[in-house]
Amino acid sequence: MPDNSIYISPQVMLERFTSILLHLNFTKERANAVAQIFTDNSIDGIYTHGVNRFPVFVQYVKDGYVLPDATPSLHHKFGGLEQWNGNRGPGTLNAIHATDSAMQLATQYGIGCVALANTNHWIRGGTYGWHAAKAGFVFIGITNTIGVMPAWGALDSRLGNNPFVMALPYKDEAIVLDMAMSQYSYGAMELSLLKNEKLAVQGGYNKEGILTNDPAEILASRRALPIGFWKGAGMSFLLDVLSTVLSGGLAGYEITKSGIETDISQLFIAIDISKLSNHSLITKTVGGIIEDYHQSVIADPSKKITYPGERVLKNRKNNLANGIPVLKKVWDKIMQL
Amino acid sequence: MPDNSIYISPQVMLERFTSILLHLNFTKERANAVAQIFTDNSIDGIYTHGVNRFPVFVQYVKDGYVLPDATPSLHHKFGGLEQWNGNRGPGTLNAIHATDSAMQLATQYGIGCVALANTNHWIRGGTYGWHAAKAGFVFIGITNTIGVMPAWGALDSRLGNNPFVMALPYKDEAIVLDMAMSQYSYGAMELSLLKNEKLAVQGGYNKEGILTNDPAEILASRRALPIGFWKGAGMSFLLDVLSTVLSGGLAGYEITKSGIETDISQLFIAIDISKLSNHSLITKTVGGIIEDYHQSVIADPSKKITYPGERVLKNRKNNLANGIPVLKKVWDKIMQL
Repeated sequence: MPDNSIYISPQVMLERFTSILLHLNFTKERANAVAQIFTDNSIDGIYTHGVNRFPVFVQYVKDGYVLPDATPSLHHKFGGLEQWNGNRGPGTLNAIHATDSAMQLATQYGIGCVALANTNHWIRGGTYGWHAAKAGFVFIGITNTIGVMPAWGALDSRLGNNPFVMALPYKDEAIVLDMAMSQYSYGAMELSLLKNEKLAVQGGYNKEGILTNDPAEILASRRALPIGFWKGAGMSFLLDVLSTVLSGGLAGYEITKSGIETDISQLFIAIDISKLSNHSLITKTVGGIIEDYHQSVIADPSKKITYPGERVLKNRKNNLANGIPVLKKVWDKIMQL
Repeated sequence: MPDNSIYISPQVMLERFTSILLHLNFTKERANAVAQIFTDNSIDGIYTHGVNRFPVFVQYVKDGYVLPDATPSLHHKFGGLEQWNGNRGPGTLNAIHATDSAMQLATQYGIGCVALANTNHWIRGGTYGWHAAKAGFVFIGITNTIGVMPAWGALDSRLGNNPFVMALPYKDEAIVLDMAMSQYSYGAMELSLLKNEKLAVQGGYNKEGILTNDPAEILASRRALPIGFWKGAGMSFLLDVLSTVLSGGLAGYEITKSGIETDISQLFIAIDISKLSNHSLITKTVGGIIEDYHQSVIADPSKKITYPGERVLKNRKNNLANGIPVLKKVWDKIMQL
């Protein structure tokens, strides 16, 4: 834990978040649900999408972009495919609702797809991957965002750092991949700059168009690097197009032009693995894959080979036992909200 | 066109491929269908997965791994979810069959998912993206492969260079992303080495564990770089797990241990966009996204900003008009098959 951090118990964090949201006219139930997600993300060690993000969410509520009472409404339905309007409700609650709806469709049809327009930032995509996978579903989730990354070969940022989530159940837990399309988020680069650290790998271009791992240079050029160069840029484009087309909501460029990251478009696909012929063998199948993966010859003996989601389990255990490490200045800010 | 290439007309290529397959006991209809896919991939400019790959496919048939007559059989079905056995048939024909089945399910349920076990290499994932999208469907396709890429932080190759495809209709054509999880395939690195060229970006580690764009060093270390470092490695892991679990087929590590890239596991998801409330607006919506994208400020004025699939249209037009450029030694080999 950094010197400038303090430990906050999950219960204290949950109560503090809930109390703040109650003062912002959330109902008791909805305040608690939103607070629980921000707390769980912090317990899982995803502080950027947990405690560190909470003040930004509060500001969006105060500014009127997130409507505490708004709930999603079903706009259109055909078989296992549904289109919902998020009505600018809290992004976390809308996304849980959409995930649950996709799971219900999957229970009925084997696979279900819910597209959600006019919603708000879902905060951490992994939330919905864990949620669906722990209930027994394969999950694929997509969202668009405001533009923060150039097209491949471009200087100006017209692509979102669109996250992509894939998850499935494993034993009582889950395997969850939650990745955005830039190598580093601007938040991560700002944090490195604050700590006076270089990025572990090249994270973007400087103003001269040279690849660099200096966060200050990338923050100045605003040319964040897509994962895999042209590949991540292309995938980001498709994630935006698919979430926009299937939801009938706003495209990334329209959100970018508005200047406010609201009215986002998202996609939630669930598959009910209990409906598969090999259902009873899946734990063994996945266990075999993990066992082989863990037998990898390690390049740096001080580092473990982990699968997506594995480190979350360790963070969760530590933070539940010892409290959640929070930067003191972040907690001070939250105490003043 | 390189000096050591010749132009082959699509019709001549199709007839030559068909003739070779007829001698390998393909029925006339199936020989023509396989030959058409290899020819179409070549017309589209994807030579590595077209004419250059054809001799490898023929060898797999001769070695008995690809069974010319085998067709997929339905193993299990629940609503919009189906599990098929590919019975080691030709990967291209199996994958077209699976794509068509997913499209039929989507027509009935809005979304359809077909998982396919025991199939062979689908050659070019984009084939199925174009096929579904041109028929009016959103498409997501996944396959596992033999291990060729290390886990993140590992030295030995236990991850596949698993391709991921996303596609949707646009006007009379399609937007198609077809990307594998390594920055460069071994085929691409071998080609660069032959041409005595460096890779455009870092493509892997040398034996000292240093990132390099020298294909010879990466071919020696066998440490190809995943796109986005840890991100692409994690995504490759999930693509393998999902295609394996949902098909009930072999996992990547089992294929790797067998030493032969057969009995592959794949996943095909289709969504029928004619079932969406905004169906009549989709061309306009996508056109708006592309228009904004094309307004990007270009870093190098000699290079155009293109969306995934856009350059294929240009290749297709050129190659249909002028013939398909084929390395002379590749065509010589095909004439000897």
